[in-house]
Amino acid sequence: MRGGNPFGPRLAAFAARLARRRLDLALVLGRADVRSLTGVDCDSACLLVGPGGEAVFHTDFRYLPMVRRVAPWLKAKDIRRLSFRGRRIGYESSIQVSQLMKLRKLSPRSEFVDVAEDISALRAVKTADEIARVRAAAALNDAIWQAASRRFRAGMTELDMARAIRRMMIDRGDGEAFDTIVCVGRNAAECHHVPDGTVWDGREPVLVDMGARLGGYCSDMTRNIVPSRPSRRYAEVYRLVLEANMRAIAAVRPGISSGELDAVARGFLGKNGFRKEFGHSLGHGVGLEIHEAPYAARKRTTVLEPGMILTVEPGVYIPGELGVRVEDLVLVTDSGCEVLTRSGK
Amino acid sequence: MRGGNPFGPRLAAFAARLARRRLDLALVLGRADVRSLTGVDCDSACLLVGPGGEAVFHTDFRYLPMVRRVAPWLKAKDIRRLSFRGRRIGYESSIQVSQLMKLRKLSPRSEFVDVAEDISALRAVKTADEIARVRAAAALNDAIWQAASRRFRAGMTELDMARAIRRMMIDRGDGEAFDTIVCVGRNAAECHHVPDGTVWDGREPVLVDMGARLGGYCSDMTRNIVPSRPSRRYAEVYRLVLEANMRAIAAVRPGISSGELDAVARGFLGKNGFRKEFGHSLGHGVGLEIHEAPYAARKRTTVLEPGMILTVEPGVYIPGELGVRVEDLVLVTDSGCEVLTRSGK
Repeated sequence: MRGGNPFGPRLAAFAARLARRRLDLALVLGRADVRSLTGVDCDSACLLVGPGGEAVFHTDFRYLPMVRRVAPWLKAKDIRRLSFRGRRIGYESSIQVSQLMKLRKLSPRSEFVDVAEDISALRAVKTADEIARVRAAAALNDAIWQAASRRFRAGMTELDMARAIRRMMIDRGDGEAFDTIVCVGRNAAECHHVPDGTVWDGREPVLVDMGARLGGYCSDMTRNIVPSRPSRRYAEVYRLVLEANMRAIAAVRPGISSGELDAVARGFLGKNGFRKEFGHSLGHGVGLEIHEAPYAARKRTTVLEPGMILTVEPGVYIPGELGVRVEDLVLVTDSGCEVLTRSGK
Repeated sequence: MRGGNPFGPRLAAFAARLARRRLDLALVLGRADVRSLTGVDCDSACLLVGPGGEAVFHTDFRYLPMVRRVAPWLKAKDIRRLSFRGRRIGYESSIQVSQLMKLRKLSPRSEFVDVAEDISALRAVKTADEIARVRAAAALNDAIWQAASRRFRAGMTELDMARAIRRMMIDRGDGEAFDTIVCVGRNAAECHHVPDGTVWDGREPVLVDMGARLGGYCSDMTRNIVPSRPSRRYAEVYRLVLEANMRAIAAVRPGISSGELDAVARGFLGKNGFRKEFGHSLGHGVGLEIHEAPYAARKRTTVLEPGMILTVEPGVYIPGELGVRVEDLVLVTDSGCEVLTRSGK
């Protein structure tokens, strides 16, 4: 984009929040937060934002040439010369305690006010360009799932299967958005099982939770290889989890709260005898980070808006026996939602 | 290891530090810190350690089965039931501000005391098992550099070369310890250049900074493909950086401070006219994390001890023209050091 910050509108909205909260300025250090306001990806940055929308990108000498090249519209300065004054200064509570200590030293009499939620609320609603990127990451993820799972054979280990997926993500995208999870049989009862040397006999179910990253943005999907002759119990659990997933997706629309959405799936599984076995929350936002706002969990009150992207991933885990999770990525639209993950389930 | 925590001695040393600092207990949340004291890799953990060496591993329900399986000697509890009391509580300033806020809520009248440096000082000195793992990671890195660079051809882009390396790291190890850096020609003047579509003409120099991860531990090395007919300036810079690297390696021994070590390389390059062009520090420790103690930089006073592992990586960067860095990984021994990276330079 020539001529300006493609994230200008979000930066302006952030500045307006600072003004409303009577902050003299804010210091943004989180890598994804900085990128979400400027488009610049840099692991050593401090973006100073004033309530009038003025922004100064501070980074160390290693990155200054890159910043000046990719974002010529930004004022860029050496981070060693960072200085600021103000009575009330915004900061993110997601930074390290030691980072906050350093900021406090630069302005010992200021009051530091947490603005992490202001930024994450803005990030939760994607721009058109961000939606296109997540959609592309999800499409790539679908293609990789199809290509990789077709090559899964009896005798392969979980690690073999995970590596096949990982390789394709590197060759065709920016790699994994998170460590790919592959669980054979009862290993799926551990819902964050780390792929190991467990061998697939070709008849047990396999659970795969995977997300390709592309253009800086993440995708996320869980699918299960359902045996042609599943146990009665597995078949029952699979049917219920899939129905919980579809019921929740059907409920996604602007105006519903993320807690209500969680309750749709949780209520359904609970009514069918699997309340305790669905131990995690229904979903999370996905964008520059694999876990971000909005969070769909009990007691969450975030109201869904068009442009939000989140996972819908109910699961049932029975220790020592089985685990099933069906996860899709959905974009909230004006009238409902668009399912970005298209793989069969 | 059967029967006990292989990191028991480090845990005991940490407890002794807590006792010396009159702390009632410490709460360890950093992923690598928790692993360095218990051997357990878990991204959602709070290790409670008492000054008598008692330790309780708290994690959420997703990981409890894994923790109980891999570390049966550890007392493991649901993190939702985390509770503690004490006047002086150790915590790590490397955690997020929001995490510290949550801990403070659980014990509002306690004084929270930073123990991050206590743990990092203990982690800086590797156990025999850790040394073996870093050595293996460095050997794998050497093998991958040899195999990958042999396939580099004119016409390949930086991204092509970086991906070739990344693929091998996934196939043969646990992937990259950090994003592989490949810089063609003048791109090397940006010392953290992100590999892009720049095409190698087969005659320009190429700088590659790469580190394979294996068994949880990192390696780190930078090598340069020196053209058969380099420019005079490049040849001079390369010779000086290589000599700075070798002089610093020759100076590594127990008793020297990491700041003195930095000065060996910095003084040499400065005397030869490249003081300003060596803009970063000489090196950093490597272990579970790619950057950890000890740090070799100006003004650092850490005294090197046998068992420490750190990089020695002087560099010279001339904007718009060239960049050279030569980086090795060394293990401090009783009498000097062992160079863990064996690739020709």
